[in-house]
Amino acid sequence: MNRYMATIEYDGKAYAGYQIQNNALTIQEVLERALSTLFTNPTKIVASGRTDTGVSAKGQIIHFDADTTIPAERIPLALEHILPMDIAMTDCKIAASDFHARYSAKSKTYSYKIYLSKVNKPLYNRFYQYPYPIKINLMQNAICALEGTHDFRAFMASGSSVTDTVRTIDRAVMQIDEDIITIKVTGNGFLYNMVRIIVGTLLDIGRGHLQPNAICDMIATGDRSHGGHTAPAIGLCLDTVYYK
Amino acid sequence: MNRYMATIEYDGKAYAGYQIQNNALTIQEVLERALSTLFTNPTKIVASGRTDTGVSAKGQIIHFDADTTIPAERIPLALEHILPMDIAMTDCKIAASDFHARYSAKSKTYSYKIYLSKVNKPLYNRFYQYPYPIKINLMQNAICALEGTHDFRAFMASGSSVTDTVRTIDRAVMQIDEDIITIKVTGNGFLYNMVRIIVGTLLDIGRGHLQPNAICDMIATGDRSHGGHTAPAIGLCLDTVYYK
Repeated sequence: MNRYMATIEYDGKAYAGYQIQNNALTIQEVLERALSTLFTNPTKIVASGRTDTGVSAKGQIIHFDADTTIPAERIPLALEHILPMDIAMTDCKIAASDFHARYSAKSKTYSYKIYLSKVNKPLYNRFYQYPYPIKINLMQNAICALEGTHDFRAFMASGSSVTDTVRTIDRAVMQIDEDIITIKVTGNGFLYNMVRIIVGTLLDIGRGHLQPNAICDMIATGDRSHGGHTAPAIGLCLDTVYYK
Repeated sequence: MNRYMATIEYDGKAYAGYQIQNNALTIQEVLERALSTLFTNPTKIVASGRTDTGVSAKGQIIHFDADTTIPAERIPLALEHILPMDIAMTDCKIAASDFHARYSAKSKTYSYKIYLSKVNKPLYNRFYQYPYPIKINLMQNAICALEGTHDFRAFMASGSSVTDTVRTIDRAVMQIDEDIITIKVTGNGFLYNMVRIIVGTLLDIGRGHLQPNAICDMIATGDRSHGGHTAPAIGLCLDTVYYK
């Protein structure tokens, strides 16, 4: 029996998020079924963390234990014909027996993509369509306030039971390429809806609906109501999970 | 009655190409139905050219005649709720009465996207997955031979009835970004499957299955059999149509 570490890429549009649940199809269920089929043995997986309904991943990391003669590097290809086209294992290797996809993770990078357009653009179907004029420089100036170790309780969706809301954001950057904005945030942990609230707040700052210092204000007061809207799941992607 | 010029964007995956046909759903049919609904009058459209089954477009240009009180710039938004999510009108304006989307076109740019990977990558679902090792520099060196006015009969799918096979390629470039290759070709006209044969030939050169000078050889001999495979439709996109 070996422990495996695998990289998973998925287009989240068709799924009710990562985590297995009773009455909806999830990434975890599809992966566990495929691995159980491949290994002809019930196989459970553990991911670096959940992603919400509609969220995609380029570098979700999972671990699982299996007793198989298939070489680790051949498992992604062997799975390809069992998995649907919108979920893939892109890498697999044998890990230390105490490797844990969630507890061993040090930090993660999420990216969020927005396109600026009054009308739907079919080729940007994993981006958030934003139809309002915005001042990009206001957003550029505001984003750096996220970096550092702060209490991010104002960036957490209501209803979350998490009590320790201090997190460290190592890097928060925004790139512009014509009509596309990409926001990338790297941190040691993320509260529920945190990236989507960051993005919604930045857009509301850009639009002039919030003061340019709204992010500092949210960090100082811990008040969610000082922030902006929660950007939709569709633009969000778990890019990378970092381990020691 | 005004003549309108409109820009159309579509994800071609779900359609049997642009041109209307009896037993399959096409982009043209969906657009004509939507415009006829909007204007409550049967409306025909003319495009800059067809695209094949599975091919996408970012900047397909059409013209149509309509008698409507809707301002031209509002037509894209008015159409949005009649069109499916994978087809959109992204721009519309009143054109000269003799503007013709096909005959007035001077040149077009197509782009073709490839990702290099042994396994399926769900987030690249409009790219051609190429699993073999290739020498990028061989492709880079080969591509410039396309530029200029040449007889491109060797770059035409068999079965085409076109007899004048001389075309001018203004620009043919290849960009690399990590595991993604983008090939862009601008020219005054394209033969049937021409871009897909160009891409397949470049990949076969990169893989070492064709000589580095295969493109020169195809131009010189006019022999399709000296070229490479026809790359699949999925990576192809009509980017831009240029008018005077």
